[in-house]
Amino acid sequence: MNAEIITIGEEIISGHTLDTNSAYIASKLSEIGIAVRYRVSVGDRVEDIEEAILAAWNRSAVTIATGGLGPTTDDITKKAICNAFDRKLVFHDDLLKLLENRFRNLNRKLPAMAQNQALQPQGAELLDNPIGSALGILFQEDERCFISLPGVPSEMEAIIDQSVLPLLLKREGRKHIEIRRIRTTGITESELAQAIADLEPIRENMWLAYLPGHQGTDLRVVCRSENEAEAKAEVDKLSEAIVGRVGEFIYTIGDQTISEVVGSLLKNGGKTIATAESCTGGLMAKYLTDVPGSSEYYRGSVVAYSNEIKQSVLKVPPEMLEQYGAVSAQVAEAMATGVRSLIGADFGLSSTGIAGPDGGTPEKPVGLVYIGCAQASGVVSKKVNLFGTRHRVRERSATMALDILRKIMIGR
Amino acid sequence: MNAEIITIGEEIISGHTLDTNSAYIASKLSEIGIAVRYRVSVGDRVEDIEEAILAAWNRSAVTIATGGLGPTTDDITKKAICNAFDRKLVFHDDLLKLLENRFRNLNRKLPAMAQNQALQPQGAELLDNPIGSALGILFQEDERCFISLPGVPSEMEAIIDQSVLPLLLKREGRKHIEIRRIRTTGITESELAQAIADLEPIRENMWLAYLPGHQGTDLRVVCRSENEAEAKAEVDKLSEAIVGRVGEFIYTIGDQTISEVVGSLLKNGGKTIATAESCTGGLMAKYLTDVPGSSEYYRGSVVAYSNEIKQSVLKVPPEMLEQYGAVSAQVAEAMATGVRSLIGADFGLSSTGIAGPDGGTPEKPVGLVYIGCAQASGVVSKKVNLFGTRHRVRERSATMALDILRKIMIGR
Repeated sequence: MNAEIITIGEEIISGHTLDTNSAYIASKLSEIGIAVRYRVSVGDRVEDIEEAILAAWNRSAVTIATGGLGPTTDDITKKAICNAFDRKLVFHDDLLKLLENRFRNLNRKLPAMAQNQALQPQGAELLDNPIGSALGILFQEDERCFISLPGVPSEMEAIIDQSVLPLLLKREGRKHIEIRRIRTTGITESELAQAIADLEPIRENMWLAYLPGHQGTDLRVVCRSENEAEAKAEVDKLSEAIVGRVGEFIYTIGDQTISEVVGSLLKNGGKTIATAESCTGGLMAKYLTDVPGSSEYYRGSVVAYSNEIKQSVLKVPPEMLEQYGAVSAQVAEAMATGVRSLIGADFGLSSTGIAGPDGGTPEKPVGLVYIGCAQASGVVSKKVNLFGTRHRVRERSATMALDILRKIMIGR
Repeated sequence: MNAEIITIGEEIISGHTLDTNSAYIASKLSEIGIAVRYRVSVGDRVEDIEEAILAAWNRSAVTIATGGLGPTTDDITKKAICNAFDRKLVFHDDLLKLLENRFRNLNRKLPAMAQNQALQPQGAELLDNPIGSALGILFQEDERCFISLPGVPSEMEAIIDQSVLPLLLKREGRKHIEIRRIRTTGITESELAQAIADLEPIRENMWLAYLPGHQGTDLRVVCRSENEAEAKAEVDKLSEAIVGRVGEFIYTIGDQTISEVVGSLLKNGGKTIATAESCTGGLMAKYLTDVPGSSEYYRGSVVAYSNEIKQSVLKVPPEMLEQYGAVSAQVAEAMATGVRSLIGADFGLSSTGIAGPDGGTPEKPVGLVYIGCAQASGVVSKKVNLFGTRHRVRERSATMALDILRKIMIGR
């Protein structure tokens, strides 16, 4: 089954916005064994959108378009859909009521322009948008389907996950697809490939994919088969071989984020945590509190961006800052100990380093980061050398800190 | 003159790599007044590439393809070009010598695979690649041209800047393009559209686009004209009208992020800031420290996720927490005042609210957030009602806090 993605909007075609929607959709489709063969972007011209829809409908079994469904005047995808499928827009009174209710529950009034969302192409099936007013539009025939989604990434992602993937899996028929996600951090994609390249499956209908992300590289093992037990056994076998090679870098097998993995360990162990951050500037706290319910184990953080705060709030001795500098194992450990006792938590986790782009020296280059972890039994620290932009160094530092805490908690 | 971009490669189409090449080329073309009308991505299939090239050649005056010109076996763009234009590959002895010389000057031997670079489609003009071995390929006729470039971003960019832009400028008399970005926050795309829809330009060669993002919605005003002064005047006129309608939501006209805008105000005013965060859980700190050099004005943060920390570290009175609850104007103000004096900064900025998905009540629903801002002259707070996922509520809360601080600093 071949798929095609159409992204619509001047912001994409003009280069102002990177086309992350296409990448999201292509990854999700590949997880269920559907390969994207064409990707097309057009601007806000009705005739260009119509042409793209018709070309896709004629050559691809699944077409997913995003963008141009919002209420503003440059949103003209619905008109193009009506032209392409020779339909009229019809008004759905029940849909208007549903939207009005949703806004009422939020203590807001449905904006007049959003009422356009009750106008939909005749005969289209509609896909619920759990977090916005623009619904997804679906046309399907036996051998092909066309889906149009809003361009706002969070809304598009919600509809893909909730409606589109289940729908496509059902259309695919009886074949079972076994998918396993193996999530690693602290190892680069090339190092990972070097360690496991010879394990790549050569069997048909089985794939191993590398998915590098912000917090590490995921491996995805997929097997498609008529036989569920067989698919599962094949995936088990390959996953075990991978764990044997690179187990120390794997923080989970499944969909949990590293924040969720660490959160579960804290929660199940009845432990609490506090953080003290310098170079990560709040990102460790942000990651930990990304998880709903994190208030059960997350107590708080001190972002000590200046040396004065390290001294006055975290009680790092001034002579230690003087002797070793703020970016040192000693200061990382003192910060972890300091925040643990200030806030009163079981664990104190700290970061201090040079995120760049400036501030590096030959002895302490950009990317040098120390992570400290204090608990009742004592304090440890770890030095890491990271590379990349300021943004990447910060992301990687905060992720490494969580992974170091994870390893301490599981006794590795 | 309409342009089309074709990006070639499995890594793009599968979603593993973001298509940054397209964005680069589209931006550069728009700077010289050439609008991209289509963008197409295909994988490593010769017939798909050939089809894309022919479709582009038939409908677009300028086509630029990237990818698939390197020496490895999955690089099959040249074959597709030969098919599309009905040419043969011919061997260029002089080209081989040139490449061998270049490698010799770098004290390297030309890799055997790179010798393929001396094979080029018959009749093609070649565009020099100053930093790699894959040359650009050009076919031109009176009314249209086709250009194929390597996919490595640095090589593609070098050839675009050095050869392609001068070539295209020569082909077309130069038109001026004026682009202005107006960045808003705290107003939804629909509300924005409702406020300014009647200002939409009806003049040809002038556009107004809405670009919703994580931290608010950008407006982009574009005018293309033979006359630079006229383009500027038209954009000025429309921008002023927009500012007249929705000025209070505009945090900048230009490319700065809200973190950069707030950072500049602090830096220029010689002021420092500290933050106290509950529901945003470190995100305010993260946003402020996203900016290189933020240590000049950013002192630190306390993420007070639990009531105990609000009391013990930020000195929020327990009876206040008892009487009004943690999510209240009083507590937001006490947190702002508390962190300001704890850390010793000119401004204390705080957030307390319910990010969800759980924890809401009829009186205090998910999305209710209070922002506090303390300075020497006193403390204020603002109540906001946000909607969306936990992630969105947190992003919007932190952005609103920065915007509230911005307005206080500019005396609004």
